[in-house]
Amino acid sequence: MSTTQVKALEATGSDFNTFHHTVIERRELRPDDVAIDIKYCGICHSDISIVEGIDTVFKRPIVPGHEISGVVSAIGQNVNKFKVGDRVGVGCFIDSCGKCKYCKAGEEQFCKKGVISVFVGNDYDGNPTEGGYSQSIIVKDRFVLSIPDKLDLAEASPLLCAGITTYNPLKRYGIKKGSRVAIVGLGGLGHIATQFASKMGAEVTVIGHSESKANEAKQFGAKAYEILRTPEDFDRLNGQFDFLLSTVAVKLDWNQYFKLLDVKGIACSVGLPMENQEFSLQSMFNRQNTLTVSNVGGIALTQEMLNFAAENNVHPKIEMISIDDVPSAYERILNSDVHYRFVIDMSTLK
Amino acid sequence: MSTTQVKALEATGSDFNTFHHTVIERRELRPDDVAIDIKYCGICHSDISIVEGIDTVFKRPIVPGHEISGVVSAIGQNVNKFKVGDRVGVGCFIDSCGKCKYCKAGEEQFCKKGVISVFVGNDYDGNPTEGGYSQSIIVKDRFVLSIPDKLDLAEASPLLCAGITTYNPLKRYGIKKGSRVAIVGLGGLGHIATQFASKMGAEVTVIGHSESKANEAKQFGAKAYEILRTPEDFDRLNGQFDFLLSTVAVKLDWNQYFKLLDVKGIACSVGLPMENQEFSLQSMFNRQNTLTVSNVGGIALTQEMLNFAAENNVHPKIEMISIDDVPSAYERILNSDVHYRFVIDMSTLK
Repeated sequence: MSTTQVKALEATGSDFNTFHHTVIERRELRPDDVAIDIKYCGICHSDISIVEGIDTVFKRPIVPGHEISGVVSAIGQNVNKFKVGDRVGVGCFIDSCGKCKYCKAGEEQFCKKGVISVFVGNDYDGNPTEGGYSQSIIVKDRFVLSIPDKLDLAEASPLLCAGITTYNPLKRYGIKKGSRVAIVGLGGLGHIATQFASKMGAEVTVIGHSESKANEAKQFGAKAYEILRTPEDFDRLNGQFDFLLSTVAVKLDWNQYFKLLDVKGIACSVGLPMENQEFSLQSMFNRQNTLTVSNVGGIALTQEMLNFAAENNVHPKIEMISIDDVPSAYERILNSDVHYRFVIDMSTLK
Repeated sequence: MSTTQVKALEATGSDFNTFHHTVIERRELRPDDVAIDIKYCGICHSDISIVEGIDTVFKRPIVPGHEISGVVSAIGQNVNKFKVGDRVGVGCFIDSCGKCKYCKAGEEQFCKKGVISVFVGNDYDGNPTEGGYSQSIIVKDRFVLSIPDKLDLAEASPLLCAGITTYNPLKRYGIKKGSRVAIVGLGGLGHIATQFASKMGAEVTVIGHSESKANEAKQFGAKAYEILRTPEDFDRLNGQFDFLLSTVAVKLDWNQYFKLLDVKGIACSVGLPMENQEFSLQSMFNRQNTLTVSNVGGIALTQEMLNFAAENNVHPKIEMISIDDVPSAYERILNSDVHYRFVIDMSTLK
């Protein structure tokens, strides 16, 4: 098989200054493959977590990137969903068995054979996968998303992880007109979640920690912005929410946060803190509250999310950077200094 | 209004030796009231917790008991659901507003005005409520349950709390033929939960800590009995369950217990430990697991549960005691020395 060499940005260690330009190989086009010229790639916090684990966990060079948007440059002979020139996206995964009950239900993330990650994985042939910090990628058509005309191609990229990660639980728990939703954290995930929930008709309150974001929260559709520091602050909003979406990756004082939920209210974390959470089941008990988690979503739902974003004017707020800004962007994300998602202009990869 | 004086067993302090015989007043029969001669009353762990809190939390004498079964002795003029001589039960609560959305939905436990507990509460007139360790009780008809003929009256009493507490989440989460259910703990709650789940068609595994209960677990319908001590024990049952019901009131190592759940598996605690729980959201993440709680259930569901128990030969295993055995029974419950529920023969209250 002949492969194609493409430029990429690769990290070889957990120190961000190990990023360097390199050349990787993309496989020959298979009959059901789509070749994509990558135009933009978003930077997600999980890219950073993975790079930080290169030395200890992964022990291999990594080309990150799982919020990929671009244009179809070639299609395999059996592909009929896409044509050259189409605007498309690729998110967190690029293959699954297609046969198990989860794949059949459009929940490829739970594939029994194991879903193949767009980077830091190995495909079913055993070849390492390399992500979107590169010029192009070849992906099985079933895992390629259509970017609707109404979506800006650069703005679309964060939707492919941050978007589906937040849209999934909002849909799963039936957020609709009249739902009272709290979004904890107004970052890359939270600012998109706020837009989705409010466009679904919910009354959204953002719980943040910086007064400076109050106005933006409202521009994203929130009706209120709250900073909750003391137990009395939480008491003030006692029982006010049907659904709470935590988008932060820190330990929360759930004994306080559960106060915010009404009867049968549900808290869902899409942030994934490293520390243990610690709370009393008593804080959930009288109102029969629930704590759950959510991680991305299947391909069909991702397409639905993109269509919803296009139809409802959901706009990730992005800061465009060049490929050589990646290390400093990582540092800025770790310092919460991003409004609200970095997107790499891949034309700067030369 | 004329009241009736009835004999009762009352605790005046958190020390179980403060229990003493006394006389309490029951209200005059109102038009929608049912007067019940109490024949049996189960002892629930929460009775003990409340008695233990007399000195510090409640600061009043308490007549416990919320698993009441007996026979109708009189009815108010507007009561047509019951007649004198009917076998009836009373569980955890005896009044609610009847008007809020929760009451209308048959979920009186969430009543917006506040549900009235059968004991250690105050009714809407401000009078303290006194429970089932007494000769008789007067309860609004809407909160009186019919005990089906097929149920033994003594065995029925534990169903009124332990039964509904476990039936509710099993129903809510759709346990049915083929469901893979783990029941943690084989005590008063667990041995009934095991019967309910298996009679619903589930494959039930009991997770206990004493080899001596393995045979009984299987008699209650479990297909397996497991003692899980080490992480390797948990690994062995990795992903084996759709639903886990914890009936124990101790801190669990959820990082291990979540391993047991399959994709979208749900853990529900009906035990209410005092200590904080401590675990990583990461242990829930890849399989999108959920942790929730459940506390008793509404009147309509309680009646459904009694009917289900009657039709499906669910039998709480009880140890009958006399009223003067209550203090020692409390001690035995605290030492996990009960197989599986104490029921007081109220004819011994003289």
